[in-house]
Amino acid sequence: MSIGISNKKILITGGLGFIGSNLACRLVKHGNTITVVDSLIPEYGGNLRNIYDIQDKITVSLSDVRDVAAINNLIKGHDYLFNLAGQTSHLDSMLDPITDLDINAKAQLSILEACRKNNPDIRIVFASTRQIYGKPKYLPVDEKHPRHPVDVNGINKIAGEQYHILYQEVNGIASSVLRLTNTYGPRMRIKDARQTFLGIWIRNLLEGKTIQVFGDGKQRRDYNYIEDVLDALLITATKEEAVGKVYNLGAPNPLSLEDTAKIMCLEIEGSDYQMIAFPEDRKVIDVGDFICDYSAFCNQFGWEPKVNFEEGIQRSINYFKKEIKHYI
Amino acid sequence: MSIGISNKKILITGGLGFIGSNLACRLVKHGNTITVVDSLIPEYGGNLRNIYDIQDKITVSLSDVRDVAAINNLIKGHDYLFNLAGQTSHLDSMLDPITDLDINAKAQLSILEACRKNNPDIRIVFASTRQIYGKPKYLPVDEKHPRHPVDVNGINKIAGEQYHILYQEVNGIASSVLRLTNTYGPRMRIKDARQTFLGIWIRNLLEGKTIQVFGDGKQRRDYNYIEDVLDALLITATKEEAVGKVYNLGAPNPLSLEDTAKIMCLEIEGSDYQMIAFPEDRKVIDVGDFICDYSAFCNQFGWEPKVNFEEGIQRSINYFKKEIKHYI
Repeated sequence: MSIGISNKKILITGGLGFIGSNLACRLVKHGNTITVVDSLIPEYGGNLRNIYDIQDKITVSLSDVRDVAAINNLIKGHDYLFNLAGQTSHLDSMLDPITDLDINAKAQLSILEACRKNNPDIRIVFASTRQIYGKPKYLPVDEKHPRHPVDVNGINKIAGEQYHILYQEVNGIASSVLRLTNTYGPRMRIKDARQTFLGIWIRNLLEGKTIQVFGDGKQRRDYNYIEDVLDALLITATKEEAVGKVYNLGAPNPLSLEDTAKIMCLEIEGSDYQMIAFPEDRKVIDVGDFICDYSAFCNQFGWEPKVNFEEGIQRSINYFKKEIKHYI
Repeated sequence: MSIGISNKKILITGGLGFIGSNLACRLVKHGNTITVVDSLIPEYGGNLRNIYDIQDKITVSLSDVRDVAAINNLIKGHDYLFNLAGQTSHLDSMLDPITDLDINAKAQLSILEACRKNNPDIRIVFASTRQIYGKPKYLPVDEKHPRHPVDVNGINKIAGEQYHILYQEVNGIASSVLRLTNTYGPRMRIKDARQTFLGIWIRNLLEGKTIQVFGDGKQRRDYNYIEDVLDALLITATKEEAVGKVYNLGAPNPLSLEDTAKIMCLEIEGSDYQMIAFPEDRKVIDVGDFICDYSAFCNQFGWEPKVNFEEGIQRSINYFKKEIKHYI
């Protein structure tokens, strides 16, 4: 698929994080001028190693999206904003809900106000999450599914989404929202499960530890490899039809957690997994099976994931085999 | 209807405002110990005149719900929290969206955190708004109607609601949510249209000015008289079945804006109304016809509005005839 943004000025919040840095790596090849914004908060996904290959070709602003003055200034003059900064941990959002609100809701509103005042012609893509739906009432979950989050993170992400859509409708700021499911790949956070459990599983595999599967392992999940998500972000940013819209991403062949573990264990000789009971704090916010219906996005733009889980996880593990010391 | 809370300790946020002060007046009669919290921000509904009759029988804390330390302290030892503080102006929420967020979302999360830490057995009723639905896709609007707000206020009120429901589900804090439509009556804000347009209409009538009806006047609205809303708040607070639930309020006979104006003009001899074009800033956030389906609440608890608009508006105007100097 040839999706082009070239010779543009592009701002990426969360740009030292997993998705943001991969996006910067792809976009920098096409003559774009890239500025990444990241606060490098240790618990989040930002990591300077993520831009090691391109650090002399992009501008890095170590700012926090909560810093209104910084954001007001940064937003100026850019053609595109990939708004990817976020607190992603469901568990942390329950332990420190106010911080989650400040980043996932309040900072988003400030960013949109900055656009309204300083750059109303900017094109925005906002990364949301399937977490906003909560426990599915039916599968696969389409965009019309009720939004009943099981954690504070989901509530704040709903607000973040809605601000973007509202500012499009009322102020004409051209925004789109993508609801991401489990995205994985090189440059993801593997230190712990804060970004996705796949991260800590990769780390444990590489450190020779047994993977822990919560519950009966039958809960199904859908996974998107990073390169497919980058395609989706770029399609969204460049299509007029996507303005003011909200789309799910997803994958065609959901896997049970146990099958996920099995596939991952095949990559590392001698590795293994075990089933353990749900820890209480995770049980109350677990959503069971989760499969996204991404047919709206697929039908509109022809997007389909191209990298299956076996291939994507192999590429990811190969990346971290070499790079692990920078990620733990 | 006999709805009893007696000999309890009751905290009312926004307790110097329209609904909060009326609630305090009713509750104080039954041996309850009342503390009202209000910041008396001039643009909001708080007014010391509202508690003139009961000021020596209640405790007033001039605190702001955004003041985490104050709230942490106030929440202790209370049996009930009627959580009514809010920024209610749709227009203000577009001009100063961050303040709306701080009050309608962030402070709500702080209040719930305060309950979780300091008083997890408290019983909460949270006042939300029909504004969360946005422009109706069908009428009457029931609780399952999609939530697509047309202003920042609606988005933040959704978050406020969802925090309450989440804290019930995850932390066991017994919360209920009522979505109010246009509530009116004695003690409402009549200085301007920040609470409801009925307020400024009452003021204009009493000052001999012509009422201005935006648009063609055919937009229908449902109105609840304050005493009916107090009944609903007390039913909700005292019914176990209401815990974790969200209900609309509403009224059986919606009126067009023009008919509303006609009825109100009957109360003041020589008064009149005129139709004028929508101001641009109001047009973009107007929702057209709005009628709430309150059958869920009615079927569950037998609540029905008892005061029709003609009677309610007469009582309201009679109140403000005597009291107007304290409200403008």
